[in-house]
Amino acid sequence: MEHTELGVVHTRVDRADPEVVEALGGFGVATVHEAMGRVGLMRPYLRPVYRGARLCGTAITVLLQPGDNWMLHVAAEQLREGDVVVAACTTESEDGFFGDLLATSFRGRGAVGLVIDGGVRDVADLEEMDFPVFARAINAKGTVKATLGSVNVPVVCANALVRPGDVVVGDIDGVVVVPRERAAEVAAAAGRREANEESKRERFRAGVLGLDLYSMRGPLAELGLRYED
Amino acid sequence: MEHTELGVVHTRVDRADPEVVEALGGFGVATVHEAMGRVGLMRPYLRPVYRGARLCGTAITVLLQPGDNWMLHVAAEQLREGDVVVAACTTESEDGFFGDLLATSFRGRGAVGLVIDGGVRDVADLEEMDFPVFARAINAKGTVKATLGSVNVPVVCANALVRPGDVVVGDIDGVVVVPRERAAEVAAAAGRREANEESKRERFRAGVLGLDLYSMRGPLAELGLRYED
Amino acid sequence: MEHTELGVVHTRVDRADPEVVEALGGFGVATVHEAMGRVGLMRPYLRPVYRGARLCGTAITVLLQPGDNWMLHVAAEQLREGDVVVAACTTESEDGFFGDLLATSFRGRGAVGLVIDGGVRDVADLEEMDFPVFARAINAKGTVKATLGSVNVPVVCANALVRPGDVVVGDIDGVVVVPRERAAEVAAAAGRREANEESKRERFRAGVLGLDLYSMRGPLAELGLRYED
Amino acid sequence: MEHTELGVVHTRVDRADPEVVEALGGFGVATVHEAMGRVGLMRPYLRPVYRGARLCGTAITVLLQPGDNWMLHVAAEQLREGDVVVAACTTESEDGFFGDLLATSFRGRGAVGLVIDGGVRDVADLEEMDFPVFARAINAKGTVKATLGSVNVPVVCANALVRPGDVVVGDIDGVVVVPRERAAEVAAAAGRREANEESKRERFRAGVLGLDLYSMRGPLAELGLRYED
Amino acid sequence: MEHTELGVVHTRVDRADPEVVEALGGFGVATVHEAMGRVGLMRPYLRPVYRGARLCGTAITVLLQPGDNWMLHVAAEQLREGDVVVAACTTESEDGFFGDLLATSFRGRGAVGLVIDGGVRDVADLEEMDFPVFARAINAKGTVKATLGSVNVPVVCANALVRPGDVVVGDIDGVVVVPRERAAEVAAAAGRREANEESKRERFRAGVLGLDLYSMRGPLAELGLRYED
Amino acid sequence: MEHTELGVVHTRVDRADPEVVEALGGFGVATVHEAMGRVGLMRPYLRPVYRGARLCGTAITVLLQPGDNWMLHVAAEQLREGDVVVAACTTESEDGFFGDLLATSFRGRGAVGLVIDGGVRDVADLEEMDFPVFARAINAKGTVKATLGSVNVPVVCANALVRPGDVVVGDIDGVVVVPRERAAEVAAAAGRREANEESKRERFRAGVLGLDLYSMRGPLAELGLRYED
Repeated sequence: MEHTELGVVHTRVDRADPEVVEALGGFGVATVHEAMGRVGLMRPYLRPVYRGARLCGTAITVLLQPGDNWMLHVAAEQLREGDVVVAACTTESEDGFFGDLLATSFRGRGAVGLVIDGGVRDVADLEEMDFPVFARAINAKGTVKATLGSVNVPVVCANALVRPGDVVVGDIDGVVVVPRERAAEVAAAAGRREANEESKRERFRAGVLGLDLYSMRGPLAELGLRYED
Repeated sequence: MEHTELGVVHTRVDRADPEVVEALGGFGVATVHEAMGRVGLMRPYLRPVYRGARLCGTAITVLLQPGDNWMLHVAAEQLREGDVVVAACTTESEDGFFGDLLATSFRGRGAVGLVIDGGVRDVADLEEMDFPVFARAINAKGTVKATLGSVNVPVVCANALVRPGDVVVGDIDGVVVVPRERAAEVAAAAGRREANEESKRERFRAGVLGLDLYSMRGPLAELGLRYED
Repeated sequence: MEHTELGVVHTRVDRADPEVVEALGGFGVATVHEAMGRVGLMRPYLRPVYRGARLCGTAITVLLQPGDNWMLHVAAEQLREGDVVVAACTTESEDGFFGDLLATSFRGRGAVGLVIDGGVRDVADLEEMDFPVFARAINAKGTVKATLGSVNVPVVCANALVRPGDVVVGDIDGVVVVPRERAAEVAAAAGRREANEESKRERFRAGVLGLDLYSMRGPLAELGLRYED
Repeated sequence: MEHTELGVVHTRVDRADPEVVEALGGFGVATVHEAMGRVGLMRPYLRPVYRGARLCGTAITVLLQPGDNWMLHVAAEQLREGDVVVAACTTESEDGFFGDLLATSFRGRGAVGLVIDGGVRDVADLEEMDFPVFARAINAKGTVKATLGSVNVPVVCANALVRPGDVVVGDIDGVVVVPRERAAEVAAAAGRREANEESKRERFRAGVLGLDLYSMRGPLAELGLRYED
Repeated sequence: MEHTELGVVHTRVDRADPEVVEALGGFGVATVHEAMGRVGLMRPYLRPVYRGARLCGTAITVLLQPGDNWMLHVAAEQLREGDVVVAACTTESEDGFFGDLLATSFRGRGAVGLVIDGGVRDVADLEEMDFPVFARAINAKGTVKATLGSVNVPVVCANALVRPGDVVVGDIDGVVVVPRERAAEVAAAAGRREANEESKRERFRAGVLGLDLYSMRGPLAELGLRYED
Repeated sequence: MEHTELGVVHTRVDRADPEVVEALGGFGVATVHEAMGRVGLMRPYLRPVYRGARLCGTAITVLLQPGDNWMLHVAAEQLREGDVVVAACTTESEDGFFGDLLATSFRGRGAVGLVIDGGVRDVADLEEMDFPVFARAINAKGTVKATLGSVNVPVVCANALVRPGDVVVGDIDGVVVVPRERAAEVAAAAGRREANEESKRERFRAGVLGLDLYSMRGPLAELGLRYED
C-alpha cells in the first residue's frame, strides 16, 4: 500500500472482480457490514442527498484540499465503467465540491456514483439524473481550482480506510467499504446471512419471541436479569 | 415511581385508557404539546426515519446499554396491542439498535411504533412496512447482546421523562409524552384548542392581522415598540 | 444603513425591482451565488422543511428574541405582495417560532415564504399549503409573546447580512441574499452563466474531460502533479 | 412526585440528610456513578466553567424558559445552606442566564453551586469567587424576565431526572444525581469501592496486568480471542 | 458601506477614537453587550485559545477562503497600533489559519489580537507570547496561499457584522462588536451600568433577594405564579 | 498490512526506531504535520484532557466496541517502554473508557500516553499523575467488559490511519501520526523547517511583512487583487 501523499495520481488500479461487485450490489449495506464482521462502515453523517439513492462500485479515490475541487476533474480521467468516486478531504469541509456538471462528466466516463466527505450542490439536478451521491452536506458554496491533492492513493473517508479498487456500497442505511481481497468472501457471507434472515422474519411475524428463537432466557438469567410484577 | 436501575423487567404496566390514547392520536404533536402546558416534549434531534411516519400509543420503556440491543428482545415479550416501545440509552449512542427483524417481531406482538434515543437501520424496509420509527440517527452499525439494561423502568429519552404506560405521540413535528394520569384532560384540551384554531385560520386567510386578532398593539406600545418611517 | 437595534419597526422598505426579482427566481441558488462572486450565502444548516420548497422574494427582516415569536406578528403588517420574511434571532434558538396559523397570515398578506434562523412546526400543514420555509430545525416547542425585537432593521441570519428589500432566493441547495442594488447585475450574470453551462454539459455528456475543456493540464503540471503507474 | 408544570413554586423540599451529603461530597463523580449502579449521570456536555470547580449539595430545581432567567431569582428565596441550584430549560438554550450578581445572591442565601442546562457569563468573576458552576456554554448574551417557569418541580436536566432535595455531585468528570432515598446506600457503596480501588492501584503500579488481576484470560479465550505472532 | 466582495483591499479605515477604545477595554464583554442594547455579540463558539486572553481594539477585517490564509499576510500591511484582526471565512472552516509566525508579524505591526471564525495553531507559543486569540478551533492543519479574499470589507464573523474601524472587545465571556459611531455612547452606558451593579452586589451579598430588590413579586403574581407548600 | 478485524491480538509489532521517536518528540505537532507534507493529522475534536499534556511514542493500536473497555486491558500486556496506546472505536462513543487505574497500569508497563477516539474519566487524577491523554470527551460514564475488539490491527482513529509501531505525536495543537517507514525522513524535515522558522520570526518581529518576505506582491497582483483608497 502506498502512503497517502499530495500531488500524485496513480493510474493503475487493481479493481475488485466485476461479478463480485454486482453480487455485493444486491445486498443492503447493513447486511454487507454484518457479513464483513462489522468493520469498514463510514460514519453515519454521510447521507444520500436524495431519497432512494443507492450505489455499488469500485473505488477511484480522491484526496481533496478544503474548498478546492480540482482533483475531481483529474479523477474523471481515471474512471472506468462501474467505478464510484470516493472523495476524502485533508480537513473537515462542507463546501459544495460537486454539482451537475461534474455528475454529467463522471457519468460520461462510466462512474455510477459519488461518496464525498464534503458538500455537494445542484441536488435537484442530481436527483433528476438519478446520479447517486452520499455526502456530509448540501451546500451551494462553490470551490476553486488552485491546489493539488491526489488521486488513487489510500484515503480515509468519514473514518473508513478506502483503497483504489475496493468495493463501496451505499444505501439509505449508510456506506460500507469492502477491501477488494475480501469481496468474494463477503458476498458469499452476505448471501448466507440473507437466506437465514428470511426464515427468522417468518417466525417473528407469527409472534415468536427473539428470547425463544435465540435461546436468550438462560444467558439473561445467568447475568441476573430479574422479573418483577 | 420506582427508581431507574439496571437488570430488571417490570411486567405489570398501568396503561392509559385506550379510548383516550385513540383520541390523542387524532391530534398533531404541536397541539398536544400546547394542550399539556408546553411540557413533555422530547428534544428535536429525534426525527421520523421516513416521511409520513406517525404514531400514538402506550409506552413500554427500555433502558439500553450503548451498542447493545438485547433489551429490545426482552421488551418484545411485554408488548400488548397498541404499545409504543420507548428506548433510552445509558449514554449517547447512534448505533443501529433496531432493524426490520425487530420491527417484524414488535408488530407481531402488537406494537405500533418505536421511539429510540439511538440509531436504527433497514430504513427502506421500515418504510415499506410502514412501521413508524423516531430515532436520532440512521446507522447500519449493528449491536451486540451482552449486557443488561432494563424494561419498564422510568427512563429519560431525549430529555423527556417517560414512565411505562404513558402516552407517546409522534409526527413530523417531534415526539411528546403525556403522563397517563393527565391523558384524558390533555385530550380534551387539545380538542378545544383545535376548534379554536380553525376560526383563527379563517380570519388570517382573510388578511386579518394577529396584531388585531390578539389585541397586541396596546401591550407592544406599552413596552416601547416604536414605528419609524 | 441603520444600526441593528431592538424595539423598532421600520415601515418604509426600498424593495428590489419586481421584474429583477422574478428573473432571479428563475435561477438556482448555486447559480445566483456564483453570479454574485460567491458572497451572500447563508450557512448550510438552513434547510427546506419539505422536499421541493423554493422561494424568491424581497426581504422583510425580523429580529427575534429566543423563544418569542411576537415580532413575526408585527412583521405581518409590513408585508407586501412578493415579500419573504427573513427572521434572525439575537441568539441560537431552535424553538418552533412559526406554524400553520402564521403561514396562513403571511400568505394572506402577500408573503411567498419564510427564512428563519430558528425552528418551525406544523410542517405537514406547511407542505400541504406549499408555503416554502427554510429553517434550522423542526420543533413542536411553542414560543411566547413577551419581549420586543425589531422589524426591518439589518439582520444577520445564518451568518449572512440581510437588509430590508434585498432579494432572497432559496432552493434545495441553500439560501442566498442579493443586495437590492446588485440585483439587476446579478440576474444578468446568472443568465450568462447558465447559457454557458449548457454547452459544457453537452461536452461532458460526450465524455470530454474537464482537464481538456478547461485546459487544466498545464497548470497542474506546473504545480508538480505527477502521474505514476 | 408532582408533575412537571409551569408557573408553580413548591416551598417544601424534602432534603437528603446533610451528613450523607457531606459523605458523598468526599467522592469523585465517577465513583458515585459506579456506586449508584451506573445511572443518574448528566450528559457530558455539561462542563465546569473553570478548572477545579467542584460541588456537592441538595437540589433546588428550576425550570427556565429560553432566554429568561426570572425563575432563578424566584429560586433564590427557596435556598437553604448547602443547596445546589439545578436549572433545566423547556428547550435547548445557550444564553447567559447567570452571572456574578446572581452568584452573589445565591451564595448570600447559602447555595454552594449551580448546575444549568444553559449558558452563563461573568466567568472570570465566578472563578475569582470560586462559586462552582457546571454549564453547557459560556455566553455573554443576557436574558429577560418576562415569562413564568417553575421552582422545585421535578426537572430533566441534561437528560437526568432531578427532584428537589436529591443530591447533586459535580467535578471535572461530570455531574451525577443521587435520589435522596438512595443517598445513604450510595455513599456506603462509594466508600467500599474506593477502598477496593486503592489496593488495585498498588498492584497496577507494580506491573500486574488487569488480565490477571481480574482473571480475564479465560472469558476472553472462550469468546474466541486469538493471539497471532 | 461598501458591499462584501472578493479580491479587494481597502486601505483607508475610519477607526474609532483611541480614547473611547481604551475606555471600552476597561469593561467586560457582558457589560459592553448590555450597554449596547444586547446586539452585536458573536456566537459563543468563538473561544479564547488560552485562559486569560483578553483584547480590545479597532477592527481590520479579513475575508478568507477555506484553507487559505493568504489574506492574513495582506492584512498585516494595513495594521496600525491598537488594531485587532477580525477574520471571517466564506464558508465554515476549522483549519489552522494562524500560528506563531503570523502572531509575531501582527504584533510587529501593532496589532493587539485576533478574532477568527476558523482554527489556529501554535497555541502554546501564543500563550507564551500572550497574544490574545479568539477562535472556533485549535487545529494543527496548515493552509495554503492560493486564492484571493479581501481586506477591510464589511464581514460577518460568527454571525456578527463587523466593519473596518469598529471596536472589538473579547474576554472569557465572548466577543462583542461596537460600531465605531456608537463607541462613545456605549462606553458611557457601560460605565453607568457598572456603577449601578456594585451597589446591587453589596445588597445581594447581604442576603437581599432579587425578588425584593427589583420589585418582582407583583408582576410574578399578576402572571399567575403560585406558591404551594 | 493485515485487515482490520475483530477478535485478534497481534503480538509482534515493528516499532519505529527509538532515536527517531525521541527526535520527533522534540517538535511541535504543527511542525511535524508540515514536515510530513500535511497528511496524517487526526481530526481536531481530539483534545488534551489537561493543559500541558504532550506525548510522543510508538503506537499500540486498539479497536474498541462502544461502551466496552476490555481490549484496553488486553493491550496493556503488549506495551513496551515508550509506547502510546491509540484506541479507536467501531462506532462513535463518548463513554469513559479509561481512568486512573488503567493509567496506572499502562504506566506500570511502560506506556507514555493515550490517544482515544472516545471519552475518559478521573481527569483530575490523570493531571496529577501527568499521564497525557488526548480524548474526544470527558465523561464519568463507565464501560463494561463483555465484547471482543482487537489489538494491534490497523485502526482509523479520528479519521487518521494508525498501524502498530507508527509514531504518534500529540500536543495542544492536536495529534499527528507518522508512519514508521517515514519517521526518520520526517524528523529530518521537521528539523530543517524549525531552523528556517527562527530566522523568519526574527524578521517578522522587526516589522518585515510576509508580503515582502515571501515575495507575494507579484502573484497577488497577477490574480487581480486591487487596492482601493
